[in-house]
Amino acid sequence: MVVTRAETVRWDDADPLAGFREEFALPDGLIYLDGNSLGALPRAAAARAADVVGREWGQGLIRSWNDAAWIDLPARVGGLIAGLIGAHADEVVAADSTSVNLFKLAAGALSLRPGRRVILSEPGNFPTDLYVMQGLARLLGDGVALRTVAAPDIAGALNEDVALLLLTHVHYKTGRVHDMAALTARAHAVGALTLWDLSHSAGALPVALNEAGADLAVGCGYKYLNGGPGAPAFLYVARHLHDAIQSPLSGWMGHAAPFAFDDTYSPAPGVARHLCGTPGVLAMSVLEEGVTLMARADRGALRTKSRRLGDLFIALVEERLPGVFTLVSPRDSAQRGSQVSFAHPQGYAIIQALIARGVVGDFRAPDILRFGVTPLYVRYCDVWDAVEHLVQVMRGEEWRQDRFQARNAVT
Amino acid sequence: MVVTRAETVRWDDADPLAGFREEFALPDGLIYLDGNSLGALPRAAAARAADVVGREWGQGLIRSWNDAAWIDLPARVGGLIAGLIGAHADEVVAADSTSVNLFKLAAGALSLRPGRRVILSEPGNFPTDLYVMQGLARLLGDGVALRTVAAPDIAGALNEDVALLLLTHVHYKTGRVHDMAALTARAHAVGALTLWDLSHSAGALPVALNEAGADLAVGCGYKYLNGGPGAPAFLYVARHLHDAIQSPLSGWMGHAAPFAFDDTYSPAPGVARHLCGTPGVLAMSVLEEGVTLMARADRGALRTKSRRLGDLFIALVEERLPGVFTLVSPRDSAQRGSQVSFAHPQGYAIIQALIARGVVGDFRAPDILRFGVTPLYVRYCDVWDAVEHLVQVMRGEEWRQDRFQARNAVT
Repeated sequence: MVVTRAETVRWDDADPLAGFREEFALPDGLIYLDGNSLGALPRAAAARAADVVGREWGQGLIRSWNDAAWIDLPARVGGLIAGLIGAHADEVVAADSTSVNLFKLAAGALSLRPGRRVILSEPGNFPTDLYVMQGLARLLGDGVALRTVAAPDIAGALNEDVALLLLTHVHYKTGRVHDMAALTARAHAVGALTLWDLSHSAGALPVALNEAGADLAVGCGYKYLNGGPGAPAFLYVARHLHDAIQSPLSGWMGHAAPFAFDDTYSPAPGVARHLCGTPGVLAMSVLEEGVTLMARADRGALRTKSRRLGDLFIALVEERLPGVFTLVSPRDSAQRGSQVSFAHPQGYAIIQALIARGVVGDFRAPDILRFGVTPLYVRYCDVWDAVEHLVQVMRGEEWRQDRFQARNAVT
Repeated sequence: MVVTRAETVRWDDADPLAGFREEFALPDGLIYLDGNSLGALPRAAAARAADVVGREWGQGLIRSWNDAAWIDLPARVGGLIAGLIGAHADEVVAADSTSVNLFKLAAGALSLRPGRRVILSEPGNFPTDLYVMQGLARLLGDGVALRTVAAPDIAGALNEDVALLLLTHVHYKTGRVHDMAALTARAHAVGALTLWDLSHSAGALPVALNEAGADLAVGCGYKYLNGGPGAPAFLYVARHLHDAIQSPLSGWMGHAAPFAFDDTYSPAPGVARHLCGTPGVLAMSVLEEGVTLMARADRGALRTKSRRLGDLFIALVEERLPGVFTLVSPRDSAQRGSQVSFAHPQGYAIIQALIARGVVGDFRAPDILRFGVTPLYVRYCDVWDAVEHLVQVMRGEEWRQDRFQARNAVT
C-alpha cells in the first residue's frame, strides 16, 4: 500500500498548516473536496457578517460609508489580494463579478491595440471567459473576433493580429497550469497584451503577476479565497497601463470625484477607474476575512502541502482502483493547481454517490470528477478517507442507484 | 402652528402602517431620514444573513446551490420586485449593480435600433446613468452619443435619431417624478425605446411599467427596498423584447445551459439572458428579506403616508423657518417621490450639524439638503422632531462650527 491511514494521520500531526483548519466552521464528519468551487466558511467571516449587518448597517446606517470605511473596501480588499498574486497593492481592486471584470479589461485592452482584432484563447477555457469575449466581439463588430487554439498551439498562434491573449492560469477542469511568464513574454514579443484569469490560482498556488510582466488579470473571490457564495471578484491592471486603459463600464465609483455629481465622466487615477457601481459592502467585508486568513498562511507551506495532497490522491486512486479512472490532471504536481481531476463515463453518478457518503467533490461535464485539495483545511487523512469511500462506491456499484443518476440544476 | 407634536403622535397612533416600524432594527433615539440613500435594516434580514452564512454556506457548502435554491435567487427576487413595479414576474431579475445593468440594457437597446445613434437623457440625471452612457458611446464610436436636454424639453427633443430615452423616474436630488406613461408614449411615437431608472421609485411610490408600456428598466436594491449597503440591483425587460434583445455582458449565468460548459454562448430564454456572472448569494438573500417586507405593505397606504410625511415636512419648515430654505422638491405631492429636498448655501454643514444631533439626512452637491420620508419606518412625530432640531441648528448657528464644515469622503 502506498501509505496507511495511520501514516497520513502522522503527516497531519506534523503539518505546519494544521492549525488553520480550526479557523473554519466545517460540518462534522464531512470531507470537503470542493473548495475549488466554493471555499469553506472562515469563522471570522461569520462574525464579520453579523457585525456588518447588525452594527455597521443596522446602527451606523448611512454614516458607515465613512465611519466603517465602507468606501475603502474595494481598494483595501484589492490590496490584500495583491499580496497573494505577486502584484503591488495599488494594482488590484475588488469589484463586480469575474465575468464583468473580464469584459471591462478586454474592452480596455482592445482599445489599446487599435487595428488588431483578435482575442486569442483556448477551447475548453472556463465558459464565461469565452462567452464574455463573444459578447464583446458581437457588440464591437468591425471584425473583432475570439479565436481559440489548443494549448500547445497558443505560442505559435500569437501574431500581430492578436490584441489580447486571454487565458485561465489554472484550468478549471484539469488543474493544468499555464506558464504565465513564457506566454506573456511571447505575447509581448508580437505586441499583444495578456489577460490572466486567476480564478483557480489566487490562494491556490503562488502567482507572480509582476514578475511575469502580466498586463491584466481577473479572478474569483469564492473559491480559494473563501469569500462566500458569489463573493465579489477582483481585477488587476499593471501600473504601466494605469493611465492608458479605460473601462467601458464607466460607473460613478470609477469617477475621479464620485461625490461631486458632475454630469461628465472623468476617470479616477490608477486602478480605481475600473470600479463601476456601488460596491457590495456586505459580501466584500466577508471576502476581506477570507483573504486575510489566506494571507496569514505561509505561501511555500501551502504549495508544498497542496502538491502532496494531490500526489497522495492520485497514488491512492491508482493503487486501489487500477484502471478504473483516467487521470486528467497533470501527474507532475509542479504543473498542477490545487485540484485533482479524473475522467469516468459515470462521473456524475459517482460524485453523487460520494456526496451521499459525505465526501463532497464535484462533476464537470461531460465526464470529469473534480476534487479540490485546499491545504488550509483539507487533511491528508481526509484524502485517504475520500479514496476509501470511492473504493466502496465502485465496489458496491452504488452509483447505479436511480437517485444518483438524476441530474440536478447545479452540480 | 401647522400642527402640534401631540397631534403628530395621534396621527402615528392611527397609522395603518405603524406596525412595520417594529420590523426594523433602528438605533434608539435616531431619526433616520436617509432611507432614500440606504434603507434601514429589517430584523428578518439580519436573521437571514446569519442563516445563509452559518447554515447554507457553512454547513451546506456547495450543495446549497441546489438544496437552498441559491441558483433561483436572481429570478425569485426579481419576481418579488416585479410585483412592486407593475411588471410580470418573468420580466425582472436581480443582478449586478444599477450601473452594470444600465450598460447591458442600453447596449441591447441600441442594437435594436440600428442607424439611430442618440441616447437622450437630461442634465443632472444621477451621475452614473450619464457616465455609463458616455462609456458606452466611447466604446461603440460610430457617432453614438449621449444627448441631454432639460426636463421640459425632452418631449420636443424626441425624434427619429433617438434610439433610447433614458430617464430616472424620480429625480435623486429633487424627488420630482417624470410622467412615465406620457414620455414612453412620446418615445414610441418616434420609434425610440425607453429605459427607466427606478432607483428612487421602487418601494417609494407605485410604478406601473406594463401599464405605461415601458420597454426597459433598472433599479437599486439598497434604498427603499432595504436590501443592505451595495445590495444587488435589478433589471426589467418587457416581454415583447425578450427574444430580440441580447446582453453584451454575455456571462455564463445568462447562458441557455450554464452547466453544459459549451464553448459557445447561447442566450437563455427570457429575461434570464441578462444575468452575467455568479450571483452574489449572501447579498441577494438579504435583499429578498427587504423586498418581502416591502411587498407586505399596502401600496395605497404607503403612498398616502409618504405624501403626508412630505407635506408635513414642507409645511413645518416653511412655517418655522420662513425664507431660510428654498424648496427644490415639487410642492405638489403627486409630483414628488418619497423625499423632500431644500437648497441652502450652507447645506453641507447644516446636514452635519443635524447628524450630530441624531437626525440623519444627506447632502447632495452643490447645496441640497435631502430628507427621505420612508413610510415603513418614519413616523409623523419623527418629521416634527427633525424640524425642531433644524430650527435649533439654525437659531444657534451650530452649522458654523469647524467640525461641521470639513468635508468627508462620502456624505
